[in-house]
Parts: sequence; C-alpha cells; structure tokens
Amino acid sequence: MEFLSGVTKKEALELSELLAPERIGSEVKVNGFVHSIRDMGEVCFVVLRKREGLLQCVFEENVSKLSVKKLKESQTVELFGVLEEDARAPHGVELRVKGGEILTATYAPLPLPIGKWKLNTSLEAKLDNRSVSLRNVRERAKFRIQEGLVRGFREYLTGQQFTEIHTPKIGARGAEGGANIFKLDYFHHPAVLAQSPQFYKQMMVGVFDRVFETGPVFRAEKHNTKRHLNEYTSLDFEMGYIDSYLDIMEMETGFLQYTMKLLQKEYANELHILNVTLPDTDKIPMVRFDKAKELVSEKYSRRIRNPFDLEPEEENLIGRYFKEEYGADFVFVTHYPSKKRPFYAMDDPVDPRFTLSFDLLFGGLEITTGGQRIHDYQMLREKIAARGMTEEGMDMYLDTFKYGMPKHGGLGIGLERLTMKLVGEENVRETTLFPRDLSRLEP
Amino acid sequence: MEFLSGVTKKEALELSELLAPERIGSEVKVNGFVHSIRDMGEVCFVVLRKREGLLQCVFEENVSKLSVKKLKESQTVELFGVLEEDARAPHGVELRVKGGEILTATYAPLPLPIGKWKLNTSLEAKLDNRSVSLRNVRERAKFRIQEGLVRGFREYLTGQQFTEIHTPKIGARGAEGGANIFKLDYFHHPAVLAQSPQFYKQMMVGVFDRVFETGPVFRAEKHNTKRHLNEYTSLDFEMGYIDSYLDIMEMETGFLQYTMKLLQKEYANELHILNVTLPDTDKIPMVRFDKAKELVSEKYSRRIRNPFDLEPEEENLIGRYFKEEYGADFVFVTHYPSKKRPFYAMDDPVDPRFTLSFDLLFGGLEITTGGQRIHDYQMLREKIAARGMTEEGMDMYLDTFKYGMPKHGGLGIGLERLTMKLVGEENVRETTLFPRDLSRLEP
Repeated sequence: MEFLSGVTKKEALELSELLAPERIGSEVKVNGFVHSIRDMGEVCFVVLRKREGLLQCVFEENVSKLSVKKLKESQTVELFGVLEEDARAPHGVELRVKGGEILTATYAPLPLPIGKWKLNTSLEAKLDNRSVSLRNVRERAKFRIQEGLVRGFREYLTGQQFTEIHTPKIGARGAEGGANIFKLDYFHHPAVLAQSPQFYKQMMVGVFDRVFETGPVFRAEKHNTKRHLNEYTSLDFEMGYIDSYLDIMEMETGFLQYTMKLLQKEYANELHILNVTLPDTDKIPMVRFDKAKELVSEKYSRRIRNPFDLEPEEENLIGRYFKEEYGADFVFVTHYPSKKRPFYAMDDPVDPRFTLSFDLLFGGLEITTGGQRIHDYQMLREKIAARGMTEEGMDMYLDTFKYGMPKHGGLGIGLERLTMKLVGEENVRETTLFPRDLSRLEP
Repeated sequence: MEFLSGVTKKEALELSELLAPERIGSEVKVNGFVHSIRDMGEVCFVVLRKREGLLQCVFEENVSKLSVKKLKESQTVELFGVLEEDARAPHGVELRVKGGEILTATYAPLPLPIGKWKLNTSLEAKLDNRSVSLRNVRERAKFRIQEGLVRGFREYLTGQQFTEIHTPKIGARGAEGGANIFKLDYFHHPAVLAQSPQFYKQMMVGVFDRVFETGPVFRAEKHNTKRHLNEYTSLDFEMGYIDSYLDIMEMETGFLQYTMKLLQKEYANELHILNVTLPDTDKIPMVRFDKAKELVSEKYSRRIRNPFDLEPEEENLIGRYFKEEYGADFVFVTHYPSKKRPFYAMDDPVDPRFTLSFDLLFGGLEITTGGQRIHDYQMLREKIAARGMTEEGMDMYLDTFKYGMPKHGGLGIGLERLTMKLVGEENVRETTLFPRDLSRLEP
C-alpha cells in the first residue's frame, strides 16, 4: 500500500528562495510564465513571472540548450542555469540560462499588453479579459493587498476572542429591508439572497459573545455608480457586553491599526509596486452627524438641504474637512438619523430621532456602517410596530431576544471599497476580482 | 475634537484572565449569561456562561447585595466578589459573590434545557431554536472546532504561498454541470448560484499560481440524506506547476497534519468537552478506485454491481477496510471514472476511461473531491466537444487556457462534513449553524 505523508520539496525554486545570498553563483532550476521577451541580438532577456514577482533570465547566443526562438509570451517554462547578481534586474538577480523546457503551450497572442508596468487599458477591457489583465504585476498586487486586509481582520478579531461563523446566504427574508433583494425559487418556496448576515450574527452573540464573518452579500440595487456593486465581500463582526457603540468603533480602530502593521510587514512588496502610503490610524476623529454637516456647511459655504440625510458630496466634504483640519484619512460619523437606519438600530435615548450608530469614512467614502443594536425584546417589538412592519417571518430572530441577549453592536465593512481607497483607485470594480453590476454577470 | 485610538481594557474579566494563579483571593468583576441556578437553601450556585466556558458563582445568605432571588436563567449579569479555588467547580475556581447587577432581561423560560451537559433534544427542535440550542456548551463547542478547521486551512495554505480570493456567487452558468443549479433573475437576465468556485479558481491560477477560497456553494439537489446540504461551506484550493495529481493530495495531507496540531494547541478545551480523539494524519493510504472496489468486494463478500460507480455503502466499506487493515481514518481513492467527473478533469493518458482525480474519505464518507485539471486549450475544447457540450457562455473561461496555463489541479472540502466526522456526529446538520435542506429555509 502507498501512503502520503505531506508536501515534498520541489527542485524548482521560488523567488524568495532565489534571493537568499548563498544562491548567487549556484545552479538553480525555476519555472514560471514567460512574461516578456526582449531580443537584443546576441543576448535575449526573458522575464519570468512567478507568484512573488519577476525574474530576469538571460539567453546568451549558443549557451542555452533550449533555443530562445522557441519561446513565446504566456507559455509556462522550466529553466535552469546559474544565478548571478545584476543591479539592473528586478530584485537584483538574474538567471544565466543553460537550458530548460517548455511546460505548457499558448494558442494566441495576448489581447492586452500585460508585460507593461502600467496596463493602460479601459476598465471594460480589463474586466472582459479578467484572467489575462490580472497577470499584470500591478493589477495583481491590488488583490494581494486585499488578501492582507482580510487576514488582518480575521487575525485581529481572533486575537480578541471572536469566533468565526458561516451563515446561510439563502434565506426566507432579508435583514435590511427595502426593495434591493434578489429573489429566487427554493424548491417551490420563495427565497432571497442575504443582504447581510445581520440577523444571524446577532443570534450568535448569545452563543459566542463575539463573532465575525467574511463572506458575500447581495444587493439588488439599481445604482450604476463607481462605488456600488451588486455582490460584494462584507467583513462583519458583532460583539456582546459592550458599554456603548464606542466599543464597536474602538474595535474597528484596533483592526485598522493591526492591519496596517501587517501590510507593512508582509505585503511591503505589493505596497511598493502600487506606491501606496499607508494611512495614519493611530487616532481616528469622531464627529456627530449633525455637527459634521454644520462643519462642512460653514467651511465650504454649502447650504444644508436636508438635516436628516447625507449626500455623497457631503460625505466627500467631511472627508476633505478632516484631512485639512486634522490630517486624518479616516473619520467616524456618529448618530445617524433613525429614519436612515434599519429597525434593529438602537435609538439614542437622549434624542430618539438619532441612533447610537456610525459610519466610518475613508477619504470621504463610507466604508463601514455599524452601531449598537436593540437587545431588549420588548423594545425591539415596539420599534417594529412603530415602523408599521410585520413580525411575520421574524419569529426565530425575535425569539433570540425573548430568551435574553447582552447589550451588543457590530459593523460591516465593504472589502472592495476599503481596498479601493487604500490603493488609490477611483472605481470599486478595479479592486473586485469579478465584479457584478447592472450590466455585468460575466466572467 | 474627540479621537479613538483602539480598544480600552474592560474591568470585567474573561475566564482565561480569571484562571491566572495570582487572581485567587482577589476581588474581581465578571459578566455573562445566567446559565443555571441551583438553590441549596443557605447557599445558591449560579453558573455564568462566558465565551470561554462556565464560571461557578456562589451566593451565600445575606452576603451579596444583589439578591439571588432576582436572578433568572438567560439574563445577562455583572457580578463582583472574591475568586477562590474550588476543585469541584468548573476550571477549579469559583466566585464568592458580594454584589452585582442585572444587565439585560429575559422574557420567557427557555424552550430547551441548555444548562444540561448533553442536550437530549431532537435535531428538529435544536434547529428550530437554533439561537437557544447553541447556547448549550457541547453544541457550541462543535462550531469552535469548525472555526479551527477553517483557520488551519487558511494558515497552512498562506504558509505555502497561496493567495486568498473572493469569487462571485452569482453567475451566468454553473461550473459543475447537471441539473442541481439554483436559478434567479438578475435584472431580467437569467442567472445561477455558484455550485463551486471551480472556473474562477482555475482562472486565478494563471495569476497567483496558488489560490484558495473559503465560502458558500449552492447545490439544488433533491437528496434528503444525513450527508447532503443545499448550501454548504467549501474549502477550495487550486495550484499550478504541479507534477501530478499527487501534489494535490500531498498538500491536503499537509493541511490535515497542520490543522490537527492547531486543534490540539488552541482548541484543547473544545476537544475535551466533546471527547474527541484526533485522527492520525501522519500517513494517509491511497488506493485506486477499481482496486478499492475489489478489496472490499473480496473482504466483505460483496458483488461489484457497477465497475464505474461507487455506492455510498461501498464508500463506507472502503473506510472500514482501511481502518481494519491499516488503522487509517482517512484514505485517498484515486482514478475515478471519467464519466463520473466533470469535463475539466484530466483523463489518465494510460486509460482515458479513468481520471487523474481523487476523493478523500474520512470514516467512510467523501469529504473532498479533487484532481488534476486539463490545462491545454485544445484538449479542453476536444473534451467539451466529445461530451456533446456547448462552448456557449464559456468563452471567458476558455480564453484563460488559450492564453496559456500551467499544469494545475485542486480540490474542494466540505467543511460541515469534515467537522461532522471529526466530532463524531451522524448528521451533517449537527455541524451546520443554520442548515439549508429540502424542507428548511429558516431560521
């Protein structure tokens, strides 16, 4: 009988292994995509694309047993030769090729010039050719940063004794209300796709105290803007035994601080590729909703049209205000009007027209909505009644509160928006692997 | 202006803080759910449920300023008093209560006896009262183990230079074929829910070499068995530059080894609560599909009815065979018949009726399907044609291969099944927070 006992080390080396000083001058084997070919006559430079970066491979005339003439961009190859230092090459090393083989073939010239440093292609073309456009080193780097953000979220919250949960995306009704719900047929029963894990994460606060989830949410919104998606990745947490909504904002601040350090440590290469300067997260200002409106109205001479609503332009100006006045990239805006928040939001006992909730703006764009929730069964039922809503279909959610719940609150972060702002993009589709919007269902 | 600068330490302590030896004899403050109340007359034992476990709190007559008579199961409370050692209490400590307050109320007696060690309630009742039944310490522990499995998957693969991706769950067509697809209307376009991230993770192998995703998948299967769900969490990975399908199985073995160590280290409490003995993952046997059928046919005198199919009972017997003969809990079954695998599976060049693919069985149940994929554009198109399938709607997937792809393969692990087998449950709904099946869409 044959047995498997774990991963066997491969002969072909990865980039970080090649960069160990003792490798210089030694013979090595590498594999990768042919990223670009530059024929200089007597010498030919072939750049390999590997997962950690690019490697320059030099074919000198009559040296390599594998003819460089056989190589084409987008083949995968395995090459061997001697590793030498060269300050002009990416990462300061190059492979003097002695031979190798073509591993897999390509069947057509690339539709986009991915070998260029910056892919000057329309967003539409990039999305239509997603599995090609992301082979560009800069395009790919954005999603490595995105990975870092999710890692930071999970690692930080795990350290804070949160439990990760997986809640269903098909359900009987939406949590957030409104018309933006995708409907489907579930074995002849009407069903919907989850707008958020809100009900479930609250239910699990009674079990684990602190929970988080990183997963897809679905919004059938008919907005076609640079910041809306119809499916996005939501970083959600919910925590019990809070003193107030401030605890939620403190936890988010802690997450951001942890994650910026993680990016600096483990994603320095990608930050460098994208020329990203990480925002300051040491101290994040907070301001009341009504106060924020006043501040920007005064400073930018803008009339307040509706004291209970925040227009995108106002959001943007709040961001600008705090950048100019305090050098802050982030700002918490608190006490959103009750009418603008779902029924489960805790109203401010001091003035119930407002809630103990907040948004976090990053560069003038909302990337988080959160706040304290109603934990008291009676209060929750009264609010549902006062809104003219029905309890129908909410029994199992409401039961959670009937059987006791701690004071709690939480938030949801839009991952693609956070990534967009961090890497300095203007359209959220630039930081979404496969965006879904009004006109895009493929690839 | 006010600023937030991270998490403020709370006065109320968590269980792991209470268990530090220097706490004994000191006054402490704690909060939690009233898990159970045992009135012995002069003394009353109130057990608090905290996220890390249970804490016994002792109310002696006329000592506490908070009357124990006011307490009810399922309230949340904050108590203070002196921590003392007591070998009979959970974790060996108890709180001698001096006072405290009720934080939040409860409105009805609990519908299930969650204070019992083992919740002897029907599965239906547990699922109907999910936010209550999971407050039982044993029920909750299963999902802490589940968290550990996902953590292990991500941590191990991150260490192996995989990149995490987030792929869309709404799409234009399914990846796995067949009729088990949920359909929905996407702004007047027909759309489906993802049966797996298969196409996307393959497309991303050309970008990141190695990718993984942990997320929901949807199968509209009309099976109502103990091992089927219509929505489940799939742990997927896909990796390039493989030598053969063996590389995939080696990586999965590595994941299992890493994760068992992680569970032992970080989830020892939950393993203890559930009385779980971790399976041996040092060496996992592998056997060909046809050979496995022969072995169980011989040993258990069972006629082979169909050489190209594996019945659930046969799967079970293969598990039994390898347990009996080799003491193995896991077994890789390789070379599944081509007809039973999707078009993208790589056929065995030696005998194309079989594929370079595998299942991993755990205790006789399939928990993983994986294998090498076709990476060659021409071969892929030929296989699609040979199956009488159409390329329609697959252009963007196929383009990936037209522009070159490394040899690659991957797998998908059913998280709930893996958890079920690990904790010794018989029904996959026992290890699903909110299961979705033919008859269950709520809670």
